Amino acid sequence: MRQVICPPSPSCSPDLEDFPLQYLSLADECRSETAAARSTEVKSVRAAAMRSSVSFHLCLLLCACLGVACVAGVCVWSSQWRGGFAWGTSGLKFNWHPVLMVSGMVVLYGFGAVVYRVPLTWGGDKLPWKLAHASLMLLALLLSVVGLCAVFLVHGAERIPPLYSLHSWTGICSVALFAMQWAVGLGGFLLPCSPVALRVALKPLHAWLGASILMLSIAACISGINEKLIFVLLRTVNGTQPYSSLPPEAVFANSLGVLIVVFGLVVLRILSNRNWERPEPGSQDMVYRPLLQEENE
Amino acid sequence: MRQVICPPSPSCSPDLEDFPLQYLSLADECRSETAAARSTEVKSVRAAAMRSSVSFHLCLLLCACLGVACVAGVCVWSSQWRGGFAWGTSGLKFNWHPVLMVSGMVVLYGFGAVVYRVPLTWGGDKLPWKLAHASLMLLALLLSVVGLCAVFLVHGAERIPPLYSLHSWTGICSVALFAMQWAVGLGGFLLPCSPVALRVALKPLHAWLGASILMLSIAACISGINEKLIFVLLRTVNGTQPYSSLPPEAVFANSLGVLIVVFGLVVLRILSNRNWERPEPGSQDMVYRPLLQEENE
Repeated sequence: MRQVICPPSPSCSPDLEDFPLQYLSLADECRSETAAARSTEVKSVRAAAMRSSVSFHLCLLLCACLGVACVAGVCVWSSQWRGGFAWGTSGLKFNWHPVLMVSGMVVLYGFGAVVYRVPLTWGGDKLPWKLAHASLMLLALLLSVVGLCAVFLVHGAERIPPLYSLHSWTGICSVALFAMQWAVGLGGFLLPCSPVALRVALKPLHAWLGASILMLSIAACISGINEKLIFVLLRTVNGTQPYSSLPPEAVFANSLGVLIVVFGLVVLRILSNRNWERPEPGSQDMVYRPLLQEENE
Repeated sequence: MRQVICPPSPSCSPDLEDFPLQYLSLADECRSETAAARSTEVKSVRAAAMRSSVSFHLCLLLCACLGVACVAGVCVWSSQWRGGFAWGTSGLKFNWHPVLMVSGMVVLYGFGAVVYRVPLTWGGDKLPWKLAHASLMLLALLLSVVGLCAVFLVHGAERIPPLYSLHSWTGICSVALFAMQWAVGLGGFLLPCSPVALRVALKPLHAWLGASILMLSIAACISGINEKLIFVLLRTVNGTQPYSSLPPEAVFANSLGVLIVVFGLVVLRILSNRNWERPEPGSQDMVYRPLLQEENE
């Protein structure tokens, strides 16, 4: 299969914001009938690619800000309303759970997922960026496992059965799938002995499962925040207002949930925009090789 | 932008399961150096396309079975453990809420989303299938609105404040986004007066927001099932076992949550597989026009 691509003229590409970023470096090579027409075309292609690049980087900046806000938000909730952090005290040990799960399974995971979309990573060898992707994901997995340990230890100490709620089922499934995805990704894409055919077959499944795990993690976060607020604000105890009257803690934690969802949607937007994908080898000479042939690194 | 595609030979396409379905009709036209080589190539291309078609239809069958199982599951939960359905009685009126939300925002929505992936819809005019997509989505929206009415009426009758939990925030956001998406989709893709440039710009956003709404709905379902089980199985009352001891109702409803998640992941798999996308006009003559140019219907 072989596809020959010429960058479009602006007249046939109204969606300039979604213009493929890789054309930025190809604009000078665009052939036209006359020198004047070529000059105009090159300028338009360059301008469209620049707009696409700006819109991508704005999206990435939004993603980074939302990620930082999510981590800051869950830390503030735990420290301001739930007593802060300690590993020795059972109640305070629990507070590591939301912080580590949101930081690992959502924010670091999201950052790791969009690594290949950053144009900075497109030049030269792909291996260092594969290692960066795998390292970010490993760190995310480790944080999540420590976050799970915290809640298992608290349940054990307080004689609460583990893994009974749908929140816990969703959460444990997402971490288990993530661990499997990481191991298969390591074997399939990083070990030099893995055959090309395996990489080609794995790539679309890896991308789909990656987005699915993020979706599962977000569902686990939403149900987890909801569950925690029901438990701690169920009745008016010691002057605490019930969840249904939306006290400041409820408004804050609900808003944290909304932030987490918005972060996830921005990550999915970055991943789903085909014009922001890493150009594969061969595009420099105006030949685009589609997915079934291009993954041979 | 112009891309000329020749169907790949199997040797350069190890991922035969992901072979583009549209090549099925193009196999006969594949040119080879010799008649014998051409015959072998045509057979291989046809076999690969057939495998891709079989794997798509299996995925679609799985999606249909899971959808039916989700609706059946939520009906059984409501009737078997929660007293069944009635519009006059406050407690039983609530039971319409989970049934209508799962049927509308998840199952019918998912079926509506994959309409364009079914090869049966590829021949001839696209308009009837656009109407089918819009009608399925409208029915899904109407069911969801009735489902919301049920819970608002129950909250009003029992003097419970509406929209306080994160579950309700997530749910109301997903329905509001869905209503907006439907209206924008109607104006942008169905009204004949909408300009081509608008359709081109809308299409990727419509697809991304569509998947995001499904993700939000699933998060709302998971947190809603979790919340309901916490409320009704909080303590041992009238012989009811608590949620933490995983009585049959908890196992059933948790499993329903898992089914809903799996249904959503299968829908996302169908939507994310590029080789299962509807071939756009022009592919019949071996010329593929990419997204920025092809949406002119």
